[in-house]
Amino acid sequence: MSTALRAPFRRNPLTLKNTINDCTSSNMILILGSTGYVGAKYEQYLKGRGIPCRAVSRKEVDYTRVEPLTELLISSRPEFLINAAGYTGKPNVDACEINKLATLQGNAVFPGVVREACESTGTPWGHVSSGCIYSGRRADGQGFSEEDTPNFSFRTNNCSFYSGTKALGEEILSGAKDCFIWRLRIPFNNENNPRNYLTKLMTYKTLLEAENSISHLEEFVESTFACWEKRIPFGTYNVTNPGAIMTSDVVRWIQEETARRDKEGIPCPFPRSYAFFDDLESFMKIAAKTPRSNCVLDTAKLTEAGISLTPVEEAVRKALREWIP
Amino acid sequence: MSTALRAPFRRNPLTLKNTINDCTSSNMILILGSTGYVGAKYEQYLKGRGIPCRAVSRKEVDYTRVEPLTELLISSRPEFLINAAGYTGKPNVDACEINKLATLQGNAVFPGVVREACESTGTPWGHVSSGCIYSGRRADGQGFSEEDTPNFSFRTNNCSFYSGTKALGEEILSGAKDCFIWRLRIPFNNENNPRNYLTKLMTYKTLLEAENSISHLEEFVESTFACWEKRIPFGTYNVTNPGAIMTSDVVRWIQEETARRDKEGIPCPFPRSYAFFDDLESFMKIAAKTPRSNCVLDTAKLTEAGISLTPVEEAVRKALREWIP
Repeated sequence: MSTALRAPFRRNPLTLKNTINDCTSSNMILILGSTGYVGAKYEQYLKGRGIPCRAVSRKEVDYTRVEPLTELLISSRPEFLINAAGYTGKPNVDACEINKLATLQGNAVFPGVVREACESTGTPWGHVSSGCIYSGRRADGQGFSEEDTPNFSFRTNNCSFYSGTKALGEEILSGAKDCFIWRLRIPFNNENNPRNYLTKLMTYKTLLEAENSISHLEEFVESTFACWEKRIPFGTYNVTNPGAIMTSDVVRWIQEETARRDKEGIPCPFPRSYAFFDDLESFMKIAAKTPRSNCVLDTAKLTEAGISLTPVEEAVRKALREWIP
Repeated sequence: MSTALRAPFRRNPLTLKNTINDCTSSNMILILGSTGYVGAKYEQYLKGRGIPCRAVSRKEVDYTRVEPLTELLISSRPEFLINAAGYTGKPNVDACEINKLATLQGNAVFPGVVREACESTGTPWGHVSSGCIYSGRRADGQGFSEEDTPNFSFRTNNCSFYSGTKALGEEILSGAKDCFIWRLRIPFNNENNPRNYLTKLMTYKTLLEAENSISHLEEFVESTFACWEKRIPFGTYNVTNPGAIMTSDVVRWIQEETARRDKEGIPCPFPRSYAFFDDLESFMKIAAKTPRSNCVLDTAKLTEAGISLTPVEEAVRKALREWIP
């Protein structure tokens, strides 16, 4: 109730604006969270294209605080900042239920910290958000558009603590200047990795049948960076592969790829059999501590902006064909 | 989605436990937020009783971060810590709607920071929370007890951003070890101050008729510290003056005190006339940007622990009688 923290917590961007306004920015892209599953791909992608970028580590700069991050932006003057840092529970979101402070700091407060630093220094930026703030489909059967209010959040009181903080993070970014909010969902690609949705399907003892929009990791990275390169309007974008998959579809595609490899005598690393939970109830009883987001997102906004990902079935089949064990 | 912040955000208390376990604590009380309206009273109260205390400022130690606060606790080894720091909008909670990051940091994240530092160093502590996470009365007509789930929070999606973060702060403290959560509501006393409920009633152009439990500031401070001195069980306590007031009751008491002073020829600083909004709708339309919490709290738990405040009417009338302009 006291206001002791009021002054320290309020920061005045104006004091910095003047020092920065007449600086021309470098053509460097600054990446936060480059040690993460998504952030590492941004660094790899930009370096692969020979685009100057700097992946800053928290050891160098404690970018979770406004002041050090602001100083970094003033000294390095990036053309654009990518925030791929956040807090995801390990091995899954259940861990966020017992690490609530870190989850709240990483997913709700941290985006606000980046916003303050970017706005005070006039740095355009993009935030890797999550589509896990929705559940199911829209009442009209369509996928959720960027304009639909999250229905899997603290405000709907049906969510995991992780999803709650992700939705709160988007609230904190509401009205942010020169900011992209990119919604990723269940990343996958052709590289065996515990964070890869396909790896998860192949390693989980029992699977939950559910419908989801999902994001091919490299396509997500390429498409989100294209938002900046093509200077499409700032704002929120669902960045998933068009369409949606049922868990059982992907299992079938895995088994079809297995059959193809068998036929052609190509060694196949994929498990042969897959078990499913009878229903959501038994999944929640046996495997999960907190509700999961399963949802379908509409990608029309990104497509209309001239950027689109591969249709989801094609993207998944390709990843399986080109699988690196 | 990335885990870049995972390691930095997760902290392991065990590393510190061993260094601290065999330290005997000093008999000093550490106060956070002592520059605030509530925190200043704690410092005044403890010094008045000759109890060793230290009011630490953020200039000395950035106690909003776990590491500096933990180091402070290790070096100063307080017997008990009082957190009276938080973020309240100025002039009112409407300001929190445009300072969401600071509100979230001050009211939801900061209590979690204090919890981590206190638990890792084995420091018992008390947190000044707020009763503004409820609205109205319980369905059965009673005041809300400490066991009732907040009904004015993000999860009920009907609240101000301020109340949302206060409720989230209590969630972050759920299960905290050796921790008191003290719920204050609308502080008042006999000292003219913009934060004083009675001053507000006397200065607002138009008043909203509402029923509330409220807390006499000095009694709140004395009673909450008594929780520690008497070693009552840790946990959540509603710390308001028993009963509830209607705005119009308080106005009547002000006018009765005015009449008494007139009669006895004592100068009276109180305004003579008070205007009320027709209804909540016109209040919201004319005066407020975000919903206010008006609620009644049950104080039986604190009373049963052997600590009780003066009945609310008596406490308000006394403050008016002893008013210091």
